[in-house]
Amino acid sequence: MARLLCFAVIQDAFGPDLEGNIARVEGLIREAAKAGAKLILAPELFQGPYFCKSEETKHFAHAYPYKEHPVIQKLGPLAGELNVVLPLSIFENAGQEYFNSLVMIDADSSLLGVYRKSHIPDGPGYEEKFYFKPGDTGFKTWTTLNGKIGVGICWDQWFPEAARAMMLQGAELLLYPTAIGSEPENPALDTRDRWRRAMIGHAVSNVVPVGAANRVGDEDGQIFYGSSFICDDGGDLLSEMNRVESGFITATVDLDKIAAARADWGFFGDRRPDLYGALTEKQ
Amino acid sequence: MARLLCFAVIQDAFGPDLEGNIARVEGLIREAAKAGAKLILAPELFQGPYFCKSEETKHFAHAYPYKEHPVIQKLGPLAGELNVVLPLSIFENAGQEYFNSLVMIDADSSLLGVYRKSHIPDGPGYEEKFYFKPGDTGFKTWTTLNGKIGVGICWDQWFPEAARAMMLQGAELLLYPTAIGSEPENPALDTRDRWRRAMIGHAVSNVVPVGAANRVGDEDGQIFYGSSFICDDGGDLLSEMNRVESGFITATVDLDKIAAARADWGFFGDRRPDLYGALTEKQ
Repeated sequence: MARLLCFAVIQDAFGPDLEGNIARVEGLIREAAKAGAKLILAPELFQGPYFCKSEETKHFAHAYPYKEHPVIQKLGPLAGELNVVLPLSIFENAGQEYFNSLVMIDADSSLLGVYRKSHIPDGPGYEEKFYFKPGDTGFKTWTTLNGKIGVGICWDQWFPEAARAMMLQGAELLLYPTAIGSEPENPALDTRDRWRRAMIGHAVSNVVPVGAANRVGDEDGQIFYGSSFICDDGGDLLSEMNRVESGFITATVDLDKIAAARADWGFFGDRRPDLYGALTEKQ
Repeated sequence: MARLLCFAVIQDAFGPDLEGNIARVEGLIREAAKAGAKLILAPELFQGPYFCKSEETKHFAHAYPYKEHPVIQKLGPLAGELNVVLPLSIFENAGQEYFNSLVMIDADSSLLGVYRKSHIPDGPGYEEKFYFKPGDTGFKTWTTLNGKIGVGICWDQWFPEAARAMMLQGAELLLYPTAIGSEPENPALDTRDRWRRAMIGHAVSNVVPVGAANRVGDEDGQIFYGSSFICDDGGDLLSEMNRVESGFITATVDLDKIAAARADWGFFGDRRPDLYGALTEKQ
């Protein structure tokens, strides 16, 4: 018994031209679909530059209600045309609230819903709390035509609780769209290896493949380090990109084989929810 | 401001001679203390061979009430003599119940208490559910004379919930005594890299140094792979041992510098306990 899933992660640079960014991602989605991918992940907030490096009122104008977002309007129909699942990262305007959100489009173009980034970073170069309210949807695993998929947006990727919550909903694959690079006030700090290690830890602890899509490029001195990757359920890299290239990578995993391995490892059978109370308490 | 802690992890092989095993560990503790270590971790169940590879009644005879355990009787006084903290792994007989336990001895030889391994594995070569009741103490962080230390015994090391629970109690260092090696019924599976990746993931996600002590040796065909290591709060290896050597490694970390880095990263400030409810629910 084998249930093979070929999926892709996209890596690219994104400038101020919204239509151009969407068109370039569309082109990469078409290529990845031609290469066999049934599920294609683009980086976080690919609609434009990573605007959160500063706190400026003007950027709120580029948020939209999720169903009306140009990214969803344009790429939603593409999913059904290509029969691919598209988790799409957007800046969402929800009335008086703004979120860093992800819209899941199924392979028949049906819109499965929205998940809002739950953990919001805030610090030099990554001033997200100015823009985004901490998400109110909780973590979600999506039952798509091409697999049960959990997605954690960027900062959510560092939290083992988020990975576990998605697994407990039945996720068979974890995906992380992200925008991470240099630290403007701490140029000596290269977070690349930590970033990978945290997600590789989730892969091992949950016996699940992981894919991460990051942007590249120099945005006014903030250098996004790419390094997008796909690892298997033991944390071995199946495919990776370097710090500068644009394009996509794919990998094929056997979801049935991995489900059997997950049962064999026994982590989920041996969990002790009765002892985890401290994790849900306010400190 | 710097608060330096030098600590050590021991790696060795253990045969059926209880007194000999204790004496050899005592010798390594004395050497590590001479090298400057203030906290010294020996591997899991160093009192003898890893008996859990089979299910045999006779092994229950080698469990003792924790205060009376030969390991505690002999090495408890040593802690005060050398001014070192000793987390000691034992097979505990608690009346009608048996546990895979750890006794924490402070640097003045005071016995701080017992923690019982919470997640118990069970499978070919690791038949622990035959011997050990799942622990009833919860996860513990110990305020010792030489730092606030969290310890997770072997299988507990794979669970991000355990690491997080210890961190939420204020742990500044996570230690994992372990006994892991080849898989008798699946000789092609080498779990060494997964084992390290899971703990390195805890280091990164919690911004905390980690030390792991494993045994070596061939016990009737079950090959323990050593590979004991110490990594820093970003998952970089500070020191490691290979798959066969005996001895110890040390590393020095600055607990104040790491606490500042942990605050700067902000993971604990950004946590969303309100969204983690699924982690404590029965499935």
